[in-house]
Amino acid sequence: MKTWEANIRKVTPYIPGEQPRSANVIKLNANENPYPPSPKAGEALREMDPSLLRKYPDPACTGLREAIAQTEGLPTDRVFVGVGSDDVLAMCFLTFFNSEKPILFPDITYSFYDVWAELFRIPYRQIPLDDDFQIRPGDYEIPNGGVVIANPNAPTGQLLPLSVIRRILSANQDSIVIVDEAYIDFGGESAVPLLEEFENLVIVQTFSKYRSMAGLRIGVAFASEYLIRCLNDVKFSFNSFTMNLPSLVAGTAAVLDQAYYRETVSKIIATRERIGEPLRRLGFSFHKSSTNFLFVTHNSCPAAELFEALKQAGIYVRYFKKPRIANYLRITIGTDEEMDALLAFLQTYLSDRGGEA
Amino acid sequence: MKTWEANIRKVTPYIPGEQPRSANVIKLNANENPYPPSPKAGEALREMDPSLLRKYPDPACTGLREAIAQTEGLPTDRVFVGVGSDDVLAMCFLTFFNSEKPILFPDITYSFYDVWAELFRIPYRQIPLDDDFQIRPGDYEIPNGGVVIANPNAPTGQLLPLSVIRRILSANQDSIVIVDEAYIDFGGESAVPLLEEFENLVIVQTFSKYRSMAGLRIGVAFASEYLIRCLNDVKFSFNSFTMNLPSLVAGTAAVLDQAYYRETVSKIIATRERIGEPLRRLGFSFHKSSTNFLFVTHNSCPAAELFEALKQAGIYVRYFKKPRIANYLRITIGTDEEMDALLAFLQTYLSDRGGEA
Repeated sequence: MKTWEANIRKVTPYIPGEQPRSANVIKLNANENPYPPSPKAGEALREMDPSLLRKYPDPACTGLREAIAQTEGLPTDRVFVGVGSDDVLAMCFLTFFNSEKPILFPDITYSFYDVWAELFRIPYRQIPLDDDFQIRPGDYEIPNGGVVIANPNAPTGQLLPLSVIRRILSANQDSIVIVDEAYIDFGGESAVPLLEEFENLVIVQTFSKYRSMAGLRIGVAFASEYLIRCLNDVKFSFNSFTMNLPSLVAGTAAVLDQAYYRETVSKIIATRERIGEPLRRLGFSFHKSSTNFLFVTHNSCPAAELFEALKQAGIYVRYFKKPRIANYLRITIGTDEEMDALLAFLQTYLSDRGGEA
Repeated sequence: MKTWEANIRKVTPYIPGEQPRSANVIKLNANENPYPPSPKAGEALREMDPSLLRKYPDPACTGLREAIAQTEGLPTDRVFVGVGSDDVLAMCFLTFFNSEKPILFPDITYSFYDVWAELFRIPYRQIPLDDDFQIRPGDYEIPNGGVVIANPNAPTGQLLPLSVIRRILSANQDSIVIVDEAYIDFGGESAVPLLEEFENLVIVQTFSKYRSMAGLRIGVAFASEYLIRCLNDVKFSFNSFTMNLPSLVAGTAAVLDQAYYRETVSKIIATRERIGEPLRRLGFSFHKSSTNFLFVTHNSCPAAELFEALKQAGIYVRYFKKPRIANYLRITIGTDEEMDALLAFLQTYLSDRGGEA
């Protein structure tokens, strides 16, 4: 081994959901919104003067942060933005988690948390969900260097009521508690009102799901003015200009179009509720979802088999080959047409399979 | 102090050049290109279907990396892209600099190197430039955990010939050597051909200067397939989707328009060479620049005073309040009209001032 080779940071990277290039695919594997973003995003991009690209963008992202602050009823200096919530969360881990005590998060949750902990050499402890894949708040009442809770949790889709979030915050006033609300707008209640009460709370959200702009890469954090300043200091030590001009321009225009997003989210929720019954009739079981996906298991057909069969049929869902959830599939809520195609395929496949058995 | 406060990473962040919002300013403080990017960038953005923003972008950035590889005559798997060269360099520091020995870079150089070293707790040693602000290659022949050389160096603007880069590489085969070529296209010779010879070489470039797309945030690294893979593993552990769809679309279209950039760079070089003599007549001295800026000092007027006077006149240049260079200004090469306005102001200001003295 070369000397320089010994100094290379070795990591096991996160593997994102497949991004098949074919347009003929039903893509239910990355929790993307099936509907386009607000038309205001496209208008803003078309009207953007491309000669402005020669200049650095506003490093403070003022316009975008002001627009987000306005939709949340928060002061602008309590808003941080980054290149998707992954960038925001990575910056939060780097900024806030420098204790020798382990940070705590569930064993089944967003699979990037342990990746960042490994990358930044942060000690961590994964707390098992209960057998119903629920978070037990009492498990988080032990010494720690920080707490990360996705609410609703992914890939389980289950929501904690705000009273439980409050209990976790109350029990952890010596730590920064990050509540990752990537999916909060699909039926949950945001912890934003708790910011007044808990100065150790950081809330992370994203434009990739509810706001239908995964391709633009915008993530958000809300916290006290002090914590946002700490986060900015680290961010400006990493890369001063992360948000490019198109993301600032389109993000600002779209986020203010709240009526549009209320309409698309109601369509997604209606589709989610509509397909529950047919899926159960086909032998699937799942907990109530408060997200834009369902986390399902089948009473006879192994998830790995179904995953492959669906892929062969051009329907991509997400399969995690991991302990405890190896017999589950995460299925994004697409359009009604896409979900009908999914149901039709499953109907045929499972009935053919049943016939063979 | 709260317990959680003790666990916050404390840093002294990099302070970027001011971004005045007024359009009536002559902005010569951030080494931005005075000419717009290739018209292909704007066309590509206008033709982009905004409904595609709902999906995650290609995490491998294949199209953009292929286009860059094509312009450099390199295989695509030797190309890495990030959110500006700052993101690329930060990822390189995190990936390659994990030795207990200090990394080495000049005392006067891009002021982010020590910021990243502090952020990631990498030991470092700043090697003084000689009195003419030149890098002495022999100084880099000591035990180290890595070497970073900006070529041409900033803010000095001075170029090292490829023979000196080769000497530094030869003497440091136990370390990764990063050559930061942000300004290489304004008159230097790239180290890309040395990649065949040195497996410890990482070359970093940017779309922000020569390619006139600071607002799009695209940086590039070239290295061996193995080093690029290591860099990708860390990058995918940090944020899988850093490059948004508009940057991929516009960057790919623009980078292939090489004829356009050859033309704009020749205009910038002509302007740079034209203003040298009038600046010297006004009492400025400076070394030959191989960049899109001049690093100047005046024989009687302090740099701090000139900086303020220029700013009052709506002309922004860069002033670093730092040891050894506190009497220098970094002036970006703008359009001919902008530089004429600068010369006219300096002429008047310095002659009025001389009259007063």
